[in-house]
Amino acid sequence: MSQTDSSTRIARVFCGTFVHSTPSAALQILENCVLGVNDKGKIAFIDKDSDVDSLSKTWGFDTAEIIKLEQYEFFMPGLVDTHIHASQYSYSGTALDLPLLEWLNTYTFPVEARYKDLDFANNVYTKVVKRTLKNGTTTACYFATIHRDASLLLGELADKFGQRALVGKVCMDCNSEVPHYRESPDECKEETDRFIIELLKKEYPRVKPVVTPRFALSCSPSLLSELGEIANNNKLHIQSHISENKQEVDLVKELFPDCKSYTDVYLKHNLLTDKTVMAHGCHLTDEELKIFHEKGVAISHCPNSNISICSGLLNVRNVLNHKVKLGLGTDVAGGYSPSILDAIRRALDTSKALTIQDPKHQTLTFEEVFRLATLGGSEALSLDDQIGNFVVGKDFDALRVNVCVPGGPIDLFPGEGTKVILEKFLNLGDDRNIAEVYVAGKRVVPFLHA
Amino acid sequence: MSQTDSSTRIARVFCGTFVHSTPSAALQILENCVLGVNDKGKIAFIDKDSDVDSLSKTWGFDTAEIIKLEQYEFFMPGLVDTHIHASQYSYSGTALDLPLLEWLNTYTFPVEARYKDLDFANNVYTKVVKRTLKNGTTTACYFATIHRDASLLLGELADKFGQRALVGKVCMDCNSEVPHYRESPDECKEETDRFIIELLKKEYPRVKPVVTPRFALSCSPSLLSELGEIANNNKLHIQSHISENKQEVDLVKELFPDCKSYTDVYLKHNLLTDKTVMAHGCHLTDEELKIFHEKGVAISHCPNSNISICSGLLNVRNVLNHKVKLGLGTDVAGGYSPSILDAIRRALDTSKALTIQDPKHQTLTFEEVFRLATLGGSEALSLDDQIGNFVVGKDFDALRVNVCVPGGPIDLFPGEGTKVILEKFLNLGDDRNIAEVYVAGKRVVPFLHA
Repeated sequence: MSQTDSSTRIARVFCGTFVHSTPSAALQILENCVLGVNDKGKIAFIDKDSDVDSLSKTWGFDTAEIIKLEQYEFFMPGLVDTHIHASQYSYSGTALDLPLLEWLNTYTFPVEARYKDLDFANNVYTKVVKRTLKNGTTTACYFATIHRDASLLLGELADKFGQRALVGKVCMDCNSEVPHYRESPDECKEETDRFIIELLKKEYPRVKPVVTPRFALSCSPSLLSELGEIANNNKLHIQSHISENKQEVDLVKELFPDCKSYTDVYLKHNLLTDKTVMAHGCHLTDEELKIFHEKGVAISHCPNSNISICSGLLNVRNVLNHKVKLGLGTDVAGGYSPSILDAIRRALDTSKALTIQDPKHQTLTFEEVFRLATLGGSEALSLDDQIGNFVVGKDFDALRVNVCVPGGPIDLFPGEGTKVILEKFLNLGDDRNIAEVYVAGKRVVPFLHA
Repeated sequence: MSQTDSSTRIARVFCGTFVHSTPSAALQILENCVLGVNDKGKIAFIDKDSDVDSLSKTWGFDTAEIIKLEQYEFFMPGLVDTHIHASQYSYSGTALDLPLLEWLNTYTFPVEARYKDLDFANNVYTKVVKRTLKNGTTTACYFATIHRDASLLLGELADKFGQRALVGKVCMDCNSEVPHYRESPDECKEETDRFIIELLKKEYPRVKPVVTPRFALSCSPSLLSELGEIANNNKLHIQSHISENKQEVDLVKELFPDCKSYTDVYLKHNLLTDKTVMAHGCHLTDEELKIFHEKGVAISHCPNSNISICSGLLNVRNVLNHKVKLGLGTDVAGGYSPSILDAIRRALDTSKALTIQDPKHQTLTFEEVFRLATLGGSEALSLDDQIGNFVVGKDFDALRVNVCVPGGPIDLFPGEGTKVILEKFLNLGDDRNIAEVYVAGKRVVPFLHA
């Protein structure tokens, strides 16, 4: 545990238990610690509480103002949702009876087309930002729709409620089944340029644009190339989908006969960078994973969605063995739950289903999945220099978890230590246990606005 | 819709939407209906609310006393948990890193041994009864432990809080790994006899004993025979485990070389009756399912447990095709969740995982799983003459669901009908949405006792 320079003022000091992940430890439990957050929202120090007097002198805070956690409380890093379609939230929890391509045509595209109506967008986007914040999602990587104004509104709402977000105006110029939901290639490019310029002009501190080709089947080769160029020229994040479903993989091979693989499609169009996150990847080959590793491309693992619309079971162990960055995603509304706690549970289920199929499969541990939901997510979004765990100099994005909240979903029994309490929270907890949410040192739950 | 005789007094009349299952319809939505509950807790009538005036005359109730459901409320049948280890609730949500036989020796048996301490038992059993009631479990089929007094206490608590329950004192005379947790064959028989006599003597209206050999590996052949005899002589329910895990199946074959199959072990010891419910059955063959059908034996499908401790994926479609009765179970604590809503979700997941493995597999629908959680459970416990759906003459076991409760987990959007609302509740709802729980016409949630 170390300290940064003391040129900034200490805004808040917490004392109690902190749990987080590090590159070498999936779970590190720090008990009896004090953590100071400076007025820039960054972690100034984290140290044993026995050193509190000297820390108070060094940093100039009053020990009487220390916020002490209760017996069944702890802080953990904020949850990172690396893939969520904000626009699909209106029908989350329904419409899960069709496989991907039919699901898109039947449910998704007709709903997404409605976001030209800003009132509709405002209602859904307000609810999804508040819901995910309440569920502990401090960082969300959002797909919006093809509509620039509604996508800008999503960014505005994330900023207003204090959520860290990457916001993508969706790009798609191919949609033969629902032709009223697509743009011309020129519109795609122009609207994307304007979206990026306008969003950056807002100077939101923690809400940024992400270049968002929907997926290979919805984009012409020239659109893919243009989007690759826009992203690279502006050093922007990129997000898309890959190898979610076998039928999709086969169709991509047909449509791009010159490409060696689905990965090669994106590679050829300069869309694979160390700021790219690709959702799903259930059916990627080892050769493709090697390209992901070489390029620093990340996978967003969305296990609820992959099960719910029968896409496939991603072998996360194999992805990690290939040293590919991986975070968790809810993929609302292919995934029905807007909670990364659910994604944690479903990631474990998926790993266990693979073990049932092949007992030699090395099942993920709950500690490993905890890391994927926090530090792993920050790596997948190339934000791990800013967030992901309690390291001095990073922003304080954190959940104050209370496992023993009145009326809550967890029953406790005598003698349970922090590791058991954490595991109970991950398996059985919900938003009632998330007493407070902090993003960059600012408390954003309970909500800042009604 | 019909009516019973009008000799009883009407205690309550509800007006609004009712959803339930029938033998021919997995989901039947009854809108604008009135349902009357008589003073014996039975459904006296259910009819269109346009007939309310004539119903009021026939049944002699005051229309001013009708309880009207709000816009986003409906009644559904109470949830039936066909397999739950009350004694394992203390560590639910933890200890899910080992397969069945190691899991039993490492976590389960040492904890179950503690139930000779009635204070310990009282704490855990009070919490599990209240928690499951709050989660909408109106009927639970419980495993307790080998201890008669603690098992009787579980029955007392279920009665006190108003839950319908089958309570099993566990029988096991073989336990080489944890030898302090077993009884002698004589103790097993005598304590079981005394448990049954004492529990029946209480004359609890809805709490009954169930004969409970733990499973073939924990019971000597003579114990199995004696338990079969006790059950048959007293026409009692029987519960046990079968074919949960492959290693277990292999060991049973070794230990019972004269038996053709795991099913044959129980068959030979007269434990397969139309009041028998067997947990899991993941690895049953079609031949074994035919015996289940012929004997009227039911399966308790516990998908959370089967995934969490990597036991297997039960093909429910195949079980249903064999016309074997099937209900859902939480199997706390192999399953981490004490909620049948979770069992509904995991049953769908399991079915979808089978579809991912084999696209020809006919996935269960949410409506079918809704039926398994209610009417199916009642059939599995041979209680479908008393509970399971809203049929005149059955007990009114029901949940008053409010999908739009303040601070709840579900966001609603304009234009959603009852089917969508129900699906959202099944996928996203929790105890906050279960405003009231009724068992035999009596409101048991909010709780009767502190």
